Amino acid sequence: MKNLAKKQVNSKTLMSENQFEQKLRNIGAERYHDNCRFHHLLHSGKLNKGQVQAWSINRYYYQINISIKDAALMSRIKDPSLRRVWIKRILDHDGRQGDEGGIERWYKLTDGLGLNRDYIKSTDGVLPATKFAVDAYVTFVREKSILEGVTSSLTELFAPRIHKERIVGMLENYDFINDITMAYFKKRVDQATDDADFVLAYAIKNARTRDEQEAVCKALKFKTDVLWVMQDALYHSYINGHVPPGAFMPEDFNDRYTEDQ
Amino acid sequence: MKNLAKKQVNSKTLMSENQFEQKLRNIGAERYHDNCRFHHLLHSGKLNKGQVQAWSINRYYYQINISIKDAALMSRIKDPSLRRVWIKRILDHDGRQGDEGGIERWYKLTDGLGLNRDYIKSTDGVLPATKFAVDAYVTFVREKSILEGVTSSLTELFAPRIHKERIVGMLENYDFINDITMAYFKKRVDQATDDADFVLAYAIKNARTRDEQEAVCKALKFKTDVLWVMQDALYHSYINGHVPPGAFMPEDFNDRYTEDQ
Repeated sequence: MKNLAKKQVNSKTLMSENQFEQKLRNIGAERYHDNCRFHHLLHSGKLNKGQVQAWSINRYYYQINISIKDAALMSRIKDPSLRRVWIKRILDHDGRQGDEGGIERWYKLTDGLGLNRDYIKSTDGVLPATKFAVDAYVTFVREKSILEGVTSSLTELFAPRIHKERIVGMLENYDFINDITMAYFKKRVDQATDDADFVLAYAIKNARTRDEQEAVCKALKFKTDVLWVMQDALYHSYINGHVPPGAFMPEDFNDRYTEDQ
Repeated sequence: MKNLAKKQVNSKTLMSENQFEQKLRNIGAERYHDNCRFHHLLHSGKLNKGQVQAWSINRYYYQINISIKDAALMSRIKDPSLRRVWIKRILDHDGRQGDEGGIERWYKLTDGLGLNRDYIKSTDGVLPATKFAVDAYVTFVREKSILEGVTSSLTELFAPRIHKERIVGMLENYDFINDITMAYFKKRVDQATDDADFVLAYAIKNARTRDEQEAVCKALKFKTDVLWVMQDALYHSYINGHVPPGAFMPEDFNDRYTEDQ
């Protein structure tokens, strides 16, 4: 299996559109963070309120950096028609006339979880691993090719399913979660579907050599690593009880957890 | 305690040299990675060979980025006398006449652990969390002030003790570790002591306002976060058994570990 994969990578033959799309979907199937245990615990009602709070605090750091990442990308795009498409993402997160935007909707979640907004905005309680991962994403988009920057968003191909699962699972399983606190994800189901369709079509059209196709695959892998690291850090800190110095500490955390080794 | 800490930070009074040094040492006492469980397991002989291999592979990524970080810092230093001091670090890692350097000594460790050098050099097996943390360190030094870049190395104040413990503990407890594989750490004990003395004196001399003193404290905290994240990622992956896709997989790993939840 390993040799086969290596052989494939070394080949310089352009993949067909179907092969290329299938390769991207395989990366998602193996590496998207719906494979992480923390997600299953989150969706199936196995977390306590403090653990859901920790998730919302860390994911907030991701949310507030999306527009920054997209602005960094746009600052390097010379084609106005691509910028015209891409700006929708910034508007989706930062808001526009008649739509408060994704970041504001995220505060509905953290408010509903009883977290202080000033504390959320300070990002003081965010895990260092989350900061390093998200900052790496912003740097990636700032430094890599436009093709890689655009296609690092291919994770959106796999997002709508996880969002639907999350909405149903969290509404059903947590008495501190309701339609208002889930507003962010309800909105994202349709947004992410549109965005992903565009990026997949862009990848297929603009990756014209095998090297470019491989660069797109690497960009998607990189992005799955960003999301995965965030999940692993939450799991290690708030499920296994190793909260690092300075990070968010849920109430009664020390009573609930003893370290696992 | 929390309020007290806040009050201290808000104060704009310059700390005395002693207070400042004590504050830096307190940060080390609380946040240096000798507080991480993975280290205790490493030094006390509680790890198997695969886990020590994983540690050496991830720490290698840190080693090879030190000279890059130091070159980025030097490229921004306008004072030749400071560059003349700082260049020693690059020479220590990359080598010079009659001294093979720290990176070469690290290969003695990975060779001794039976790891293939090409695999080590590829950095393919390094945990994404390690890459994000180390890359964040390089970016920090590239983007922050010279004072912050220099003083992010203050972790060296706490390194000689951990290195001594490590040499004794690992030699005693692992039959696959010997004087040759420990060469890197033997050399670093003296190097890091000299370097740390310089950086502490530099911090005390060059942090002239309370804000600058606080910036130095934050730089040290940032660096402890880098090292801590690396430890936590190793623990989560190779002690608790959650190895992410693509990362180094020790032989027989699946036979030894079942996931903890």
